[in-house]
Amino acid sequence: MNGTIGRKRWAIAEGYIPGWSHGREPELQSHETCCILNAGERKAHISITLYFEDREPTGPYRLQVDARRTRHVRFNELTDPEPVPRDTPYASVIESDVEIVVQHTRLDSRQAENALMTTIAFAAD
Amino acid sequence: MNGTIGRKRWAIAEGYIPGWSHGREPELQSHETCCILNAGERKAHISITLYFEDREPTGPYRLQVDARRTRHVRFNELTDPEPVPRDTPYASVIESDVEIVVQHTRLDSRQAENALMTTIAFAAD
Amino acid sequence: MNGTIGRKRWAIAEGYIPGWSHGREPELQSHETCCILNAGERKAHISITLYFEDREPTGPYRLQVDARRTRHVRFNELTDPEPVPRDTPYASVIESDVEIVVQHTRLDSRQAENALMTTIAFAAD
Amino acid sequence: MNGTIGRKRWAIAEGYIPGWSHGREPELQSHETCCILNAGERKAHISITLYFEDREPTGPYRLQVDARRTRHVRFNELTDPEPVPRDTPYASVIESDVEIVVQHTRLDSRQAENALMTTIAFAAD
Repeated sequence: MNGTIGRKRWAIAEGYIPGWSHGREPELQSHETCCILNAGERKAHISITLYFEDREPTGPYRLQVDARRTRHVRFNELTDPEPVPRDTPYASVIESDVEIVVQHTRLDSRQAENALMTTIAFAAD
Repeated sequence: MNGTIGRKRWAIAEGYIPGWSHGREPELQSHETCCILNAGERKAHISITLYFEDREPTGPYRLQVDARRTRHVRFNELTDPEPVPRDTPYASVIESDVEIVVQHTRLDSRQAENALMTTIAFAAD
Repeated sequence: MNGTIGRKRWAIAEGYIPGWSHGREPELQSHETCCILNAGERKAHISITLYFEDREPTGPYRLQVDARRTRHVRFNELTDPEPVPRDTPYASVIESDVEIVVQHTRLDSRQAENALMTTIAFAAD
Repeated sequence: MNGTIGRKRWAIAEGYIPGWSHGREPELQSHETCCILNAGERKAHISITLYFEDREPTGPYRLQVDARRTRHVRFNELTDPEPVPRDTPYASVIESDVEIVVQHTRLDSRQAENALMTTIAFAAD
């Protein structure tokens, strides 16, 4: 369990929070998640920068993940420096001072039945 | 935010634009997307080449992504040098003069409820 | 077929077992799977450690995959040292004494129609 | 378009052909696909080996992908040396004499609405 694993810079090129939902909330609310694993022995200080199609990037959104912890961050819930707009394409870069692993997931419940997608993010060298 | 990240050559082996859709358009129209992030300080000049099962490749489809911007390109909307055929398997190679990150996503709304899939594309060394 | 391929340490940052299901069981029960391929000539001894948002990691969950075999492990079925909690975000690190390949898949059947997602896990260097 | 890209050995740890389908065939038949891109100038000679949970591997399944072509291979349609069993977990290793890119996709239409998943396969060094 002496577990440092991952990289310090990650990118997710696809980002989009659907504008509406069906189903029991919060479990089945449409959302976009950035799952972060910090398997190491030191707290991770993380900055997320969001990129858009037609304006300057926003951020950094700052958060921490304690040693030996995971955190599933819903982009829906990021508010500082500003909320993430709905129905708007974006992308993100995740930077940490220690190695982490980042995975991107979306649950889309705009129609009666939800759809899911996931991918390990792109890990910079 | 001095953010160059990624590679200059990417490939997506799976490509297929479903031939029909259900639901509100354009959000829920069946589509196949190539999400591109240019987190760096220089504009990206990008060429996409499409490969097919039974004929020569087509392209390059040329597009640009400004510095510090993302662009979610629907293959449905590529028209020059020719539209992407529906219901036809294809694959794509994405080449850029600066580092970018590429992610592939499909929304399939042929049936009443949509389905989603995504993956970070293959990054050449 | 002399097939060693893969790495010895893998991570999955997204983990979540939905709390309920619809449809024929066990095929369509909501589940989260860690698919392991051991294409080599030696048995793999594997340890899985689970990470949570608000408590210390649990594990190792120990299992073996014989030479030239695959094993699709449902997290739902891990019980020793303790069952994996439902409706709880987690992450996992998979360690093996020989090279393996790890892929993460979830089938979510909380609503009438199932949703699927998959990704190759993150491979440590 | 002088396009060699990829690797010569790939692995997919998750494999499963659902045992039944709903919807228009063949488009919406449940299937599992191995999408192969050969962007280079030489024909690819490819061998696929399938691994199971409880018996020896089967294969090689041999196929070719011409230069500058893609091929979307449905595992459902592999028959030589034997058909791929339904409702049975398997994994696969794909080997080529030239660089290719491999992506794994499943369409599951066991319920009324289809579900999709995809990932770039694991590329050996």
